[in-house]
Amino acid sequence: MNRSDLKQIDREDPMASFRDEFFLPEGIIYLNGNSLGAMPLGAIQRARKVVGEEWATGLIGSMNSAGWFELPLTLGRKIAPLVGAKPNEVVITDSTGINLHKVLAAALQMQPDRRVIVMEGSNFPTDNYMVEGLLIQLGDGYRIRYAEADGLMAAIDEDVAAVCITHVHYKTGHVLDMAAITERAHAMGAAAVWDLCHSAGAMPVDLNACDVDYAVACTYKYLNGGPGSPAMLFAAERHHGKYLQPLTGWFGHKAPFDFDRDYHPAGDIRQMLSGTQPIVSLSLAEVGIDIMLRADMRDIRVKSMRMTNLFIKLVEQRCGEFGIKLASPRDASSRGSQVSFYHQDAYPVVRALHDRGVICDFRSPGNIRFGFAPLYNSYADVWDAVEKLYDILKTGVWKEVKYRKRSLVT
Amino acid sequence: MNRSDLKQIDREDPMASFRDEFFLPEGIIYLNGNSLGAMPLGAIQRARKVVGEEWATGLIGSMNSAGWFELPLTLGRKIAPLVGAKPNEVVITDSTGINLHKVLAAALQMQPDRRVIVMEGSNFPTDNYMVEGLLIQLGDGYRIRYAEADGLMAAIDEDVAAVCITHVHYKTGHVLDMAAITERAHAMGAAAVWDLCHSAGAMPVDLNACDVDYAVACTYKYLNGGPGSPAMLFAAERHHGKYLQPLTGWFGHKAPFDFDRDYHPAGDIRQMLSGTQPIVSLSLAEVGIDIMLRADMRDIRVKSMRMTNLFIKLVEQRCGEFGIKLASPRDASSRGSQVSFYHQDAYPVVRALHDRGVICDFRSPGNIRFGFAPLYNSYADVWDAVEKLYDILKTGVWKEVKYRKRSLVT
Repeated sequence: MNRSDLKQIDREDPMASFRDEFFLPEGIIYLNGNSLGAMPLGAIQRARKVVGEEWATGLIGSMNSAGWFELPLTLGRKIAPLVGAKPNEVVITDSTGINLHKVLAAALQMQPDRRVIVMEGSNFPTDNYMVEGLLIQLGDGYRIRYAEADGLMAAIDEDVAAVCITHVHYKTGHVLDMAAITERAHAMGAAAVWDLCHSAGAMPVDLNACDVDYAVACTYKYLNGGPGSPAMLFAAERHHGKYLQPLTGWFGHKAPFDFDRDYHPAGDIRQMLSGTQPIVSLSLAEVGIDIMLRADMRDIRVKSMRMTNLFIKLVEQRCGEFGIKLASPRDASSRGSQVSFYHQDAYPVVRALHDRGVICDFRSPGNIRFGFAPLYNSYADVWDAVEKLYDILKTGVWKEVKYRKRSLVT
Repeated sequence: MNRSDLKQIDREDPMASFRDEFFLPEGIIYLNGNSLGAMPLGAIQRARKVVGEEWATGLIGSMNSAGWFELPLTLGRKIAPLVGAKPNEVVITDSTGINLHKVLAAALQMQPDRRVIVMEGSNFPTDNYMVEGLLIQLGDGYRIRYAEADGLMAAIDEDVAAVCITHVHYKTGHVLDMAAITERAHAMGAAAVWDLCHSAGAMPVDLNACDVDYAVACTYKYLNGGPGSPAMLFAAERHHGKYLQPLTGWFGHKAPFDFDRDYHPAGDIRQMLSGTQPIVSLSLAEVGIDIMLRADMRDIRVKSMRMTNLFIKLVEQRCGEFGIKLASPRDASSRGSQVSFYHQDAYPVVRALHDRGVICDFRSPGNIRFGFAPLYNSYADVWDAVEKLYDILKTGVWKEVKYRKRSLVT
């Protein structure tokens, strides 16, 4: 197999036309859509509309006339089928972390006498941090029980109030079994709260088929919502009106425009809303969601698995001798839409890749993380990225990279 | 005094040139900048830059190269002098309500044995709602003691953990005495938490001169940050590192890119940050802030007081016989940058004003609220609005307004 074979596969790809809907900078192979999705071309027109028309001309009247007030619900209804939710179970609002605070606080009310929350400690730590802050606030003996993937089932016992875990591991791409873990949680009387940051828009997710209680996700990775676009929040309809999320702003009031002195919670998904949303960012998120809705999630998953399989095979063939080792599950069905390789000098290798236009991520201590977005990545991208990696490792040019080891990106 | 006198005053207004920096739709007299500020013309270019360049071309690299990661702090440093804060005491992030949850939770840790929070119940109720939610979460006997303006001082006694009040009343524009109330709170051992939604950018505010502990404000009213632009949060430096705001996301971690499993709070203002911010909305907020920084806040206040005084005088002269009654303080020094009049059929009158291009607000039960933004409102606007109001009241045309009494806008 060579590059022209892959160009041929690209030409036959039923999803190929989606690539034309995104701006992809010349000379860049963007394998970081799992941090920040690429810009849909429609985002520029949308920005012009929401700023230059809705804000400029419509002014405050756009709260109603441009649908600003309802936008968290409108986008929630749109995104619902992508995660197996009913239209009235999802809103787009605030940030993933803040939404996690809301839903876990609500979920803990389902088992008021239990004090243990099960989490996967090695996953992206902001969820750990948010839960720590919530539990400090609740006091009263609440604590986290950390377990890793293979120990999760055993960690869920009858002391557990809720499991709060991320579907796809941010570093390795390992996919947890949402159905089995949720079933185990429910069997033990615990609530199941899922973070879909690395799965929403990357693979089929069926929250209701798994009987999930609450979930959150970001919209700026595979959903291409734009930098820091507001996050998804799912609350199963059976819980509406029963448990109170504690960030009780006026958008969650049952009659926000009555301006009652006291809070009376909306009995539906609106209770999950707090305050006024960043409308420009929220409005831009719709562009990415609309594109995703036109794709078939099964096609996305098929292409994702083919791309990541191909990438693993080519890297191992071409670069296997240079101390690089697969750090993701080898079985595609256990893997999200990303591949991580371990290298002992991963950081300068990533910098060298960046210098050559391959945008990927370093993840401490030694992971090079490549994300594949089936909407706009091509099989030729896979080939080209491997060739650049090969050049860097073969020539050892990464050893010359001057760097200050700091922050990269989320 | 007639319209041409006012046009002459406009020509001599030292702030007149600021009006040219905003888009004001033809035929509209916009007296609702206290709900949503008008669009600075620069916002269109900025939107094009942040979407079409920083996102499209810079992609995830813009977290560093375009300053996205630091933006909440960068804008905080900029806005600090507008509210009498030090540059390291302010961030722009999340929403006003969520920031209120953070700072009140932190403030309550200053007096862990006290359980009473004093609030002004009649003010914009989302603050009440947010505090209710926080107190339910804390449990343990926490409760709100409501008082109105003239009873606030007496309500603050040695049972009080914190006062949590809004500087300028959303309905009447009444300004509370920040220095005196904060002094009283401190004398009783209580923390002082202020909401500046209707004062930031509308009048001089000096948080540190008043020794305020924590504060919040929105940026989309007088600061012209755009619809739902992220909110301000102030934490006095003396409290940094001592009290924990509970929405403990990774942006508030002392080393966010170490990806530690456990939360270790930043010792500075960063601890007030939670998650990734809506960058497009945040970036647009800078445009409005930058304009405000070129104005002199004393000039703004002088023009604001002149405009509101003139408006009251003209309305009372022209419309006094039509059952309209001042519902704001008559003394300009006790009044924010808005004027409310009571009318028993305020809602259809507001609709009739809207139909004639005067954008103002209805506030239940019978207030017509007019906001004056010295950066872009003119004295001629004041005249023209009064003339339209006069026409509507004199002809009784408002009686023909068909309406469904519902939501207007915030």
